[in-house]
Amino acid sequence: MPCELQSNAAGRLVPVEINGKPCIPFMGVGKFRPEGRKATPPVRTCIDYPADGNKVVPDIATALKNAGLRDGMTVSTHHHFRDGDRVGNALFDAAASLGVRNLRWFPSASFPCHAPIIKHLESGVVHHVEGSMNGPLGDYCASGKMRGMAVLRSHGGRWQAIQDGEVHIDIAVIAAPTADPFGNANGVTGPSACGLLGFALADSIYADHVIVVTDNLIPFPCIPWQIQGNNVDQVVVVDCIGDPSKIVSGTTQLTRSPDRLLIAEWTARFIRDAGIMKDGFSFQAGAGGTSLAFAIYLGEMMRKAGIKARFIRAGSNKYLVDMLEEGLTDYILDGQTFDLDGVRSMRDNPRHQHTSPFTSYNFHGKGCFASFVDAAVLGATEVDVDFNANVVTHSDGKLLHGIGGWQNCLAGRCVILPIPAMRDRIPVIVDRVTTLCGPGELIDVIVTERGIAINPRRTDLAAAVKGSTLPIRPIEEIKAEVERMCGGKPAPPKLGEKVVAAIKWVDGTVIDSVRQVEE
Amino acid sequence: MPCELQSNAAGRLVPVEINGKPCIPFMGVGKFRPEGRKATPPVRTCIDYPADGNKVVPDIATALKNAGLRDGMTVSTHHHFRDGDRVGNALFDAAASLGVRNLRWFPSASFPCHAPIIKHLESGVVHHVEGSMNGPLGDYCASGKMRGMAVLRSHGGRWQAIQDGEVHIDIAVIAAPTADPFGNANGVTGPSACGLLGFALADSIYADHVIVVTDNLIPFPCIPWQIQGNNVDQVVVVDCIGDPSKIVSGTTQLTRSPDRLLIAEWTARFIRDAGIMKDGFSFQAGAGGTSLAFAIYLGEMMRKAGIKARFIRAGSNKYLVDMLEEGLTDYILDGQTFDLDGVRSMRDNPRHQHTSPFTSYNFHGKGCFASFVDAAVLGATEVDVDFNANVVTHSDGKLLHGIGGWQNCLAGRCVILPIPAMRDRIPVIVDRVTTLCGPGELIDVIVTERGIAINPRRTDLAAAVKGSTLPIRPIEEIKAEVERMCGGKPAPPKLGEKVVAAIKWVDGTVIDSVRQVEE
Repeated sequence: MPCELQSNAAGRLVPVEINGKPCIPFMGVGKFRPEGRKATPPVRTCIDYPADGNKVVPDIATALKNAGLRDGMTVSTHHHFRDGDRVGNALFDAAASLGVRNLRWFPSASFPCHAPIIKHLESGVVHHVEGSMNGPLGDYCASGKMRGMAVLRSHGGRWQAIQDGEVHIDIAVIAAPTADPFGNANGVTGPSACGLLGFALADSIYADHVIVVTDNLIPFPCIPWQIQGNNVDQVVVVDCIGDPSKIVSGTTQLTRSPDRLLIAEWTARFIRDAGIMKDGFSFQAGAGGTSLAFAIYLGEMMRKAGIKARFIRAGSNKYLVDMLEEGLTDYILDGQTFDLDGVRSMRDNPRHQHTSPFTSYNFHGKGCFASFVDAAVLGATEVDVDFNANVVTHSDGKLLHGIGGWQNCLAGRCVILPIPAMRDRIPVIVDRVTTLCGPGELIDVIVTERGIAINPRRTDLAAAVKGSTLPIRPIEEIKAEVERMCGGKPAPPKLGEKVVAAIKWVDGTVIDSVRQVEE
Repeated sequence: MPCELQSNAAGRLVPVEINGKPCIPFMGVGKFRPEGRKATPPVRTCIDYPADGNKVVPDIATALKNAGLRDGMTVSTHHHFRDGDRVGNALFDAAASLGVRNLRWFPSASFPCHAPIIKHLESGVVHHVEGSMNGPLGDYCASGKMRGMAVLRSHGGRWQAIQDGEVHIDIAVIAAPTADPFGNANGVTGPSACGLLGFALADSIYADHVIVVTDNLIPFPCIPWQIQGNNVDQVVVVDCIGDPSKIVSGTTQLTRSPDRLLIAEWTARFIRDAGIMKDGFSFQAGAGGTSLAFAIYLGEMMRKAGIKARFIRAGSNKYLVDMLEEGLTDYILDGQTFDLDGVRSMRDNPRHQHTSPFTSYNFHGKGCFASFVDAAVLGATEVDVDFNANVVTHSDGKLLHGIGGWQNCLAGRCVILPIPAMRDRIPVIVDRVTTLCGPGELIDVIVTERGIAINPRRTDLAAAVKGSTLPIRPIEEIKAEVERMCGGKPAPPKLGEKVVAAIKWVDGTVIDSVRQVEE
């Protein structure tokens, strides 16, 4: 039975309910107003916990049994180990061995290494996955085989959903590179060091039951205690929680594509020429090849101009750490480390601050710092002539990516999308994005190798770069040129009836939905 | 009308209700079991907060008005500035100027500098104070003049009361030595640096509305963010939040009394001779003269024996910082810094960890680290032959002290009270403590200049020090000797009918009450 749909404020058809629970359609940017009080876990008492602080139990299955795992529960994990995670699979193997069914898996994201979860979806141990699905799980979902509807949220949206009680986590399982027997944990040391555990912080605070899994148990106290043992019920020690070579790369690959390098350089020049690059400014940069090149170009311009940033919002890597150590920024505010230099810097440099989606991204807070980043440089799979953007599907409709912090970063003061004008001879600028992830009113500048388009709403930015030699062009003009080169617009995707995923906006409303792709 | 009383499990008469709300009598150590979920503040939205993160408003009165201050509300403050605080008085002066009445002041503690609050108690602006009252406010309360009943809680009990929803804070006012316009704040820098802000952490998380008051505003981000701006509604900048000379002393006074030095040395020797002082052990020490001397003696014994502690629980000061820097301990876990060396060390040394009552003391958590401190060395105003102890009143019945972390530290593995056998020729060991603050079953050793008494329950400790030359004696014997020297037992206090204060146990039950003293 296809689910009932309604049209939201962006003119997108979205489900009336998600997995049996009613949902609120997107009402426009800054329009939905939440009510009530935050979710909250049960009051516990020291009577029920060992006075010596030793919460270690023999294995994950024992911990799940102690936690009262039963059919239909929601179990969460984090993705700081990315494609090197070994705890997610061990967790659901243990759940299967206990004979439970219909679990909701609520990861902050899942990766190709989690392909073995498909067998648990097939067997009924897992009902559905709620979180980004990169790789085989995404394919499985897009093909319409998953029983429940996927829900994609931004990092901030995940915090919001937990905090607002929209997603109640029964059991949180937190893989930790270092922990003590009380459950204090961090990501900065140990063989599986990943830097920080910010994506698991909400889980540790709000879940009814919290299990820390580590392969590096040290005596109390584990300092820094990024996860606090006072929120933790049990600790499990295993041989190996992750594959270090896939957790952090150790090396960061710069792009070699001349087009991408040009896009990166123009992005940095735009920030400079628009007057955003000034003493005490801030910017956000990620770990993709173009982002890295952008940061290197911007760093060079800052050095030449004698400009120092107040903070860089990262995804840290060697290049950003170099900028911190060189004194080109006072601080790195880091949500996840992407290489070993990032891990080392976070461990040793008090100016390299670990953050969580609470401080950086939660829209249902008393502000969050995403909105005071001067320049947010982000990717996209598609943009349209109204500057709306897509990050989860391609023009063929395939659900290939998660949202990450992307939606949250749109709160930045100047949001720039450096993207190639075409991919595999398919235009990236379209009439209407396949899936709406970010409303055009929040996206200010598109930088392509064919020119730079400024959102007409941002007359201030257009005025600021008036004297610059940058190739500023109307988006329609760039689009038309690319379509001529590619022999026309992208073919429309072949979509079935079934809605396989709902896309949440940062305030918990549904901004769009994703249909099953017909093969 | 005298309030109705009931007898609790310790045989003490306690009120049936406190300020109109029913309360639970003490049921015995580890007997009361809490139910339900933690308290939780309202869900907020970034729509209502400035996108640039600037929450600064002109003054405290404006902030209170914006916060919706009205009659009968609960307003909280912290006591990290001790007797140097200037924000508490400014706060209630502002409240008075707004014409509100019947506020409940919920400080983590109050000091002699807060004597001006008496006029607000007299005028009706403040209904009553709920928190430790050192000095004139204590006198005012003890004399029966305060309209409401005082409630004394331990630091952990205050967290528990807020967390459990027993005390709902409408507006928290957090004085901060350094803050940014978003409300991130810390105590490690600025002219009024006090080290940390842990006593205000619960307030920042659970209050409906949070105001940060600072005299050192810096650009975002204020790192470390001991208080997170995401929990803060408004920021007020004032000329001066405190008197540095009274916040931290700059110097720490060792005791010169030969009796106290002897008690300190015997305490250290007991810990050594009982085998508690071994590699990886932990101890708690405060900032009183005897405590300081104890730490110096113990440090010397550790140095000689080549022993290293895993952590010291502090109240930090120069002597403990020296031990950390010398490598005699891996960590200091610090709840409040008592001198400038403590502040400096916490600012610069990642092994000097700031803590909050959540990590250290909250009994309604999933454990807390107070219970894995090997030796907790604490004070007392009285002890009795059943090892029960009093920290809030003297034998004349006068309410002179707060509980601090004292009750929480009783969870330690070996609890030692080094106390003089008499004060002003009044015996300190009594038949029955005037006010019961800590049950004897949790108190293991009393060290006086007349000898050391071991609780008969701790046959293990008695066996451990069997071969030692320490003067181990039955408590009754020491008591009899002291009474002979003092010419008898202390005179019974002259008490009125009115209950002026309730003493809470760590689990929120009422362990005893304090009567008005007849002059």
